[in-house]
Amino acid sequence: MLSFSIVPYCSIDFIHCNLSKVDVYAIQVDNETFAKVIDGKRVAKDIREEIAVEISKMKEEVGIVPGLAVILVGDRKDSATYVRNKKKACDSVGINSFEVRLAEDSTEEEVLNHISKFNDDPSVHGILVQLPLPSHMNEQNVLNAVCIEKDVDGFHPLNIGRLAMRGREPLFVPCTPKGCIELLHRYDIPIKGKRAVVIGRSNIVGMPAALLLQREDATVSIVHSRTKNPEEITRQADIIIAAVGQPNMVRGSWVKPGAVLIDVGINPVEDPESARGYRLVGDICYEEASKVASAITPVPGGVGPMTIAMLLSNTLLSAKRIHNLR
Amino acid sequence: MLSFSIVPYCSIDFIHCNLSKVDVYAIQVDNETFAKVIDGKRVAKDIREEIAVEISKMKEEVGIVPGLAVILVGDRKDSATYVRNKKKACDSVGINSFEVRLAEDSTEEEVLNHISKFNDDPSVHGILVQLPLPSHMNEQNVLNAVCIEKDVDGFHPLNIGRLAMRGREPLFVPCTPKGCIELLHRYDIPIKGKRAVVIGRSNIVGMPAALLLQREDATVSIVHSRTKNPEEITRQADIIIAAVGQPNMVRGSWVKPGAVLIDVGINPVEDPESARGYRLVGDICYEEASKVASAITPVPGGVGPMTIAMLLSNTLLSAKRIHNLR
Repeated sequence: MLSFSIVPYCSIDFIHCNLSKVDVYAIQVDNETFAKVIDGKRVAKDIREEIAVEISKMKEEVGIVPGLAVILVGDRKDSATYVRNKKKACDSVGINSFEVRLAEDSTEEEVLNHISKFNDDPSVHGILVQLPLPSHMNEQNVLNAVCIEKDVDGFHPLNIGRLAMRGREPLFVPCTPKGCIELLHRYDIPIKGKRAVVIGRSNIVGMPAALLLQREDATVSIVHSRTKNPEEITRQADIIIAAVGQPNMVRGSWVKPGAVLIDVGINPVEDPESARGYRLVGDICYEEASKVASAITPVPGGVGPMTIAMLLSNTLLSAKRIHNLR
Repeated sequence: MLSFSIVPYCSIDFIHCNLSKVDVYAIQVDNETFAKVIDGKRVAKDIREEIAVEISKMKEEVGIVPGLAVILVGDRKDSATYVRNKKKACDSVGINSFEVRLAEDSTEEEVLNHISKFNDDPSVHGILVQLPLPSHMNEQNVLNAVCIEKDVDGFHPLNIGRLAMRGREPLFVPCTPKGCIELLHRYDIPIKGKRAVVIGRSNIVGMPAALLLQREDATVSIVHSRTKNPEEITRQADIIIAAVGQPNMVRGSWVKPGAVLIDVGINPVEDPESARGYRLVGDICYEEASKVASAITPVPGGVGPMTIAMLLSNTLLSAKRIHNLR
């Protein structure tokens, strides 16, 4: 017989959810306690609504509309999907979107020309080059051409340097790690003084996530492919951010009871029961870890929707800065 | 009765000293084993000699002499001593040194003018502004004025960003953390896959030291003033770099047997027995920690001499890069 009840989660004292206007409750089923689900989809929706309100006010009061330009080269289906989703998200909050699609065999110079035009265009406040670029182009050259004031991805080394340095402020924080921290903030999860482990050290997620946690006074360790005892170190963490792209790598045994888990991984795994033949899983084994953690992001519906929300947020921020608003 | 013998240090397998052409031996006195001393003074001397040879060849073969410019504002005695030591070190290896001394009440503009001249001067390959500046000057403005190709201190955010990013190379690595890693290299201490703890997260030592260790594939944790259990975390480290400016903070109980300890702290403590009334101690309690570690830097004579050696090394590197040599 299944017994079902909602009980306050007691083994950790720092989770409150001010979104749902109630304290966080873990769910107990059959004497097992399950972690609170950190609902990225809902938070992202809230953020998009906040952004839409601000943009509509901005338009009304000073006549300015933020603009995001996206450059897509080649015919990759996944890239086309990402770009379409970004355009849709822009539309939904009132950001003007500009799109350039170039053929796979375009030259680097053509891409650079478009970037240069967008750099000079006052109605464009953010510029994105959809990666990966065709292999005949030098990615670093192309990315470096985006002027730093419009680099809403926040990948420019100058941004990363400022992110790393105390007393300096980056112009933009990279979207995915910014989304991870925003989730912690919106769920009132304290970071200061907590042990945090970031799994993965990529330039676009792991490394900037570690720098952000450090800025918030967490004690940060970075676990990567050369780490000898990742399980042991990860088990010390109050907060885990996993960003490695390995399906279900973080098992239940890696998690300290009561820890908060942010799962950046989105990995397709074969699933004959699914209509598409596959389903998406994270880097964290949800089934196991959700029985140990106090809070966890699902995949999909966790960090994913936050990335685009943060891109919109960075574009709005850029428009405000360029036009010297507030 | 004091028994004295030299025994191979067995509890850790990765220490070899290729400087002294012998394996590392720990020293056993009265059944107590003491860590191998990492002799920064000697390594720095070796490096200065290597640099001198290279500079003399460079002068002979292509007629170029590296030049380092130092700007000193005000009358601080300690700053004057640092600048004098840098000049002496330059002289000893054949680097031309240029010095500007400005009065305490100089304007920021005067300092900026001198920087601008040095930026344009082809005989200057490195520019240092001795800190701290008088309080009426904006340090960030002044430092940002040094062109990045001559920023031999390596403190520019663009340098730090590149240091943090995989696949990017900084123009210069900040001297003190570079000196720490160089000591590990010269003593053949492996870093890859090791647990490293950096204590302190300053922009000039702790943070870049952590980034450097990470680049070398260590698993890095950063301990700082907000860390709740620094002792517990530090005790997990194979390599500790301490850079907090707290005399004797790291006690013997913080150290895992066989760990390698790099002490960046140089703290004056009262000592009535010393002629000067004080002596210098590190952030690590040498007396206790040297009985637990496999290798340790002394204070003074450890990291200190390495900082200036790395400054000379960065200046040489800069001259080679500017003139496109090797």
